[in-house]
This record gives sequence, structure tokens and C-alpha cells, in this order.
Amino acid sequence: MDAGKRIVLAARPVGEPKESDFRIEPMPVAAPGAGEMLLRTLFLSLDPYMRGRMSDAPSYAKPVEIGQVMEGRTVSEVLVSNRDGFAVGDVVLSPHGWQTHAVSDGKGLRKIDPALAPVSTALGVLGMPGMTAYTGLLDIGRPQAGETVVVSAASGAVGSVVGQIARLKGAHAVGIAGGPDKCRYVIDELGFDACVDHRSGDLPAQLKAVCPKGIDVYFENVGGAVFEAVFPLLNNFARIPVCGQIATYNVTEMPAGSLRTSALTRAILTKRLTLRGFIVSDFAARQGDFLRDVSAWLGEGRIKYREDMVDGLEQAPRALIGLLRGENFGKLLVRFPPGG
Amino acid sequence: MDAGKRIVLAARPVGEPKESDFRIEPMPVAAPGAGEMLLRTLFLSLDPYMRGRMSDAPSYAKPVEIGQVMEGRTVSEVLVSNRDGFAVGDVVLSPHGWQTHAVSDGKGLRKIDPALAPVSTALGVLGMPGMTAYTGLLDIGRPQAGETVVVSAASGAVGSVVGQIARLKGAHAVGIAGGPDKCRYVIDELGFDACVDHRSGDLPAQLKAVCPKGIDVYFENVGGAVFEAVFPLLNNFARIPVCGQIATYNVTEMPAGSLRTSALTRAILTKRLTLRGFIVSDFAARQGDFLRDVSAWLGEGRIKYREDMVDGLEQAPRALIGLLRGENFGKLLVRFPPGG
Repeated sequence: MDAGKRIVLAARPVGEPKESDFRIEPMPVAAPGAGEMLLRTLFLSLDPYMRGRMSDAPSYAKPVEIGQVMEGRTVSEVLVSNRDGFAVGDVVLSPHGWQTHAVSDGKGLRKIDPALAPVSTALGVLGMPGMTAYTGLLDIGRPQAGETVVVSAASGAVGSVVGQIARLKGAHAVGIAGGPDKCRYVIDELGFDACVDHRSGDLPAQLKAVCPKGIDVYFENVGGAVFEAVFPLLNNFARIPVCGQIATYNVTEMPAGSLRTSALTRAILTKRLTLRGFIVSDFAARQGDFLRDVSAWLGEGRIKYREDMVDGLEQAPRALIGLLRGENFGKLLVRFPPGG
Repeated sequence: MDAGKRIVLAARPVGEPKESDFRIEPMPVAAPGAGEMLLRTLFLSLDPYMRGRMSDAPSYAKPVEIGQVMEGRTVSEVLVSNRDGFAVGDVVLSPHGWQTHAVSDGKGLRKIDPALAPVSTALGVLGMPGMTAYTGLLDIGRPQAGETVVVSAASGAVGSVVGQIARLKGAHAVGIAGGPDKCRYVIDELGFDACVDHRSGDLPAQLKAVCPKGIDVYFENVGGAVFEAVFPLLNNFARIPVCGQIATYNVTEMPAGSLRTSALTRAILTKRLTLRGFIVSDFAARQGDFLRDVSAWLGEGRIKYREDMVDGLEQAPRALIGLLRGENFGKLLVRFPPGG
């Protein structure tokens, strides 16, 4: 059996992570004991939340320790099984992080049905990002037919699903994305009503032009300047599911911005806004609904997705750095070569 | 019949209102026509929202025009009635503003039952401020037994009811008020578990000491420095009904403060906070529940209230200026002399 590899956190990044904040290490591939199995990683998901785990600032989850394997979800294949209910060749969703192999006692694993959709979708549209979109939009945003829903990072794993579900619910879906290619994709492939390129200048004016009736739901993935452009366009009783703040994940100091807290809370009052932060695990009880609905929409071709694949564990650090810069296009995944 | 008086908006205040921003005028008291009645004001309510109506900055309600009678709710007595269903001597809640008399066709009036409670309470604990407390706390704050509820402006018309209902629901009730007399009243008379004087220095440390388990509900009446002291103590899943921002009503420029929007939205995400602004009229459907519950609690002595009376319409401008400085102690009302 080949020796394995893993990537550990070498140093806590200051600002943008550097490749030297990660370290790739050889790893012995142990034989599984009684009741255990050996997994081989097929796909590793890279997600913005990982930047938070590299930092020891207070957050909703514990940080990765220095020298520990980087946290992450994988789609893995069972190579050896000493465990009832899991057979060689089964494909599972696993929380075993940035490594080629893992020994598991089955805890935290979920079997994936390869007949339902390509197994990699368990990390994207049918996984955590898809469920984040589904629950944040439907349980907090609650879009009504005819309302305007705006989502930032619109071509990404979460944003792409938010806008498509908004359309399915009869809302006017507007995306914000970085660059003309992503905007074209959001409109032409995903079927959003409009998409604004936040890199092309004067975001507030562009956004206003495509939201003539204001904004009723803003699904917040980004923060910073994008939030400030959206803010004046919010209608009375608007709902803002706060899902991510990727614009601030690498900052060492909160950006000054033009909006102060008092201006924000004043508008929350006068416009009767609801801002509510959430983490997908808060809505664990909705997983059955999510899988039923989104699998069906996927099967009917009413929801589309795009994967951005990089090959080999070695590429993961650079790919995560790029994700935080907005360089990925679609759900970012690391694909592992057979035997690797 | 005596001639009447009214107070009109003379000028839009810049910063804190001055007495010269108001003008008292004699007013002919007209005989009511067919289907109309003549009302005499018994009590005029003075409330923080009135500062907003004096300004033409965008808000949830239209401003009072220059030369127009200042907006406000009164408890009035029917002097002459040409209208079925209203008899001389009936007492009504009326939207007729800062004046001694009004001719009404009955629109917007609600009859008050003097047997239920002193009629002035229709402007306080059994009126708009009481219902603001009831709906904001129960429908947005949703306190659970054992949770910690903090309310600013705790001795005021809204805050005093918030804390008392929180206690009735089994929560730990903590007030923030200005000065030792108000704090003593909040604890000794209203029965809050604790009260912190925001004028006595180091509010963050004082607040932390009386909220050892953090804060689950913050009922926001104030904004500014008080909000910033509360903010770091909020627990995961805390709810913040945003009802008022009295600290900022007189400012000509939003205070810089130490909190920036990015810090706020980051915390909304990581702590999964809900901030929701509201105006009492958003919950009009809850009026029956409110009157039933709070009347009962009042009758049982489980809710107490305090009125701060000033005598005569002439006193209203100075009293409103004092209210915005926190000089009132209890629900601020203007009492009209018989025949005045």
C-alpha cells in the first residue's frame, strides 16, 4: 500500500495565508483495527470557513492547532472495512481533513448514493454549501414571489444555489460577482435576472439600476464594500441572512468603511430590518428537506452547478489562497489521483 | 367657551431642539358640525419618537411640516357630541397632537374605560409604550426562563415594562438607567434583578458583573455607547429588538464610536445574532393580547408604572427637550388644567 500524505497547519497566518503557513508531510497508512475501516480520499472540499479555523481569534468553532491536520470535508472511498454496514468500494462523506487516507470507526460518516448524482456534489450543491444556501435563504430570507433577492459571491458554491432557489420561488434574483466571465455565467447558465460585477466600478449605481424596486432579501457572503453598496437599497422589512464575510477574513484590522454602527442600527430601526447570522449546522433538522428538494431540482435540471477542480493534495494551499481572493470559479474541490 | 391653544413646529432643530423651535399660538375653538364632536385634552404624551418627526431626514413616518401642530397622542374628553356612539364626558385616546382642543369626526379615536385603570395609562403602560415593550420583548426577544434580558432606558415608559415582563417570564432582568435614583427605583420598585448606572463610569465592567452568564436578549432603546457596552457580552443566538436609538436622535453627525460595521456583521455571523428593528404599529394584530395580558398584570399588581407629570401645554417644549436628555423619571405626560 502507498504511503499517505497530509497537510498540517504550520503557522497561523497574519493577513492573507502564505504557502509556508501549510506543511505537507508523509503519513503512514495504518491498517484498520477491529470495527474500523481505511478510507482513501477522492475529493477534498475547500471552503472560505477554513480561513477562520487557521486563526485563534474567538469564533463559533475551535481553531486547528499548529501541527494538526487542516480541517475539511472529503468524499472518500472505503479501501478496507472491518466495520459492519460499510463495504469495500462504498463512497462516504467524511470529516477527515486534508489527507490522502484516514482510518475511521464510522463516526461522522455519511454514505453517499452514487446513483443520485456525481459523488463530488456531496461537497457542493448537495452538501454543506447547498444546504447553507437552502436554509439561509428559505428559513431566514423567506423570499416572496415578486421580491428582489440579492446574493454576493453569486457564482460560488453557496451564492449560485441561493439565486437559483430564489428564482424557483418566483423572486427577482440579482447576483454580485467578480469579473465579466462570472457575471455572464450567473445570467446565462444559472438564469439569474441580473448580475453586477463588483470589480467594474461604481457598484452602488450599477446595483441600483438592476434593483429598481429595492432589495428585500440580501444573502450576505462577503461584507465590506459590497455590504455598504447593498445597504442603502434595502427595503422596509428586508431580511439579511448573514452567512459569510469573506472580504474580511484576511484583514488584520477591520476596515474603516463609511458606515458606522450607529448608522447601521438606526437603519435597522427605521426600516425594520432583520439581520440574522447563521451557521449551516444550526439548521441540521432541515437536512432531510434539503436533500429531498435540491436532489429533485437537480434531477429536473432546474438547479445547475459548476465545479472548479484542482488536482492533488499539493495544490490545496495555493487553491485556498486563491479562493479567498475570489480566483475560483464554481465550487472549489481538490481531486485526488487514483492511488495517491 | 374658552379660546384654545396649540403648539406648532416653528423651525427644524439642528442638534438638540431649542424652545424657539416651537411656537405656542392661540386657536379658535370651533363648534363641531354634523357628525362631529369637540374634544378637550386631558393629557398629552411626550415620547422620544417626536424628535424624529421634527426632522425631515428619511424615516418610517412623515415629518411634521413647519407651522403644523406638533404630532402626539392625547387622552381627551368629549365636550360636545354630534356623533352617535360618543356622549359628553366620554374619554378617548386621540391622535390630535399638541393642542388644548380638537374637533373630530371619530376617525382614529378609541374609547377608554376609566374603570380599567387611570385614563392617563392609555398613553403609557396600557398604551403605545406598553405595547412596544410587550411586542418587542415577546415577539422578537422571546426570552426563555433563566436567560438574561438587558434593557436600556430601564426606568422609562418602555424599558420599565420590558424588564417587568422579562421577570414574569422567568428571565434575569437587568436594567441600564441614568443616575442612582432611577437605578434604585428599577430594582426596589420594579423588581429587576440588577440595574447599572451608565453615568457612573466603566459601564462595560459594571454590566459584565451583573450579567455573569452573558446576555441573551438586549432590548435596544438607546444606541451609542450603551450598545457598544452590551455588544461584547451577547451570547450565541442572542436576540436584539431594536426599538429606539435615543442617544443619536439629537446628533448632527453619527458618532464615530469604536465599533465599525464590519465588526458588527462579523459578530452577527459568528454568534448567530438576530437584530430586528420594529415599530409598534407593525404588531397591530397583537393589540388584543397586549391589553388582555398587561391589564391583568396591572390589576394583580405584578406590573408597576410611574408617571412624570408636567402641568400645562406651555411646558411641553421644555419637557420634550428634557426627555431627550434623560431628565424625565417615568412616563412623561403633560396634564391640562380643567378649562385650559
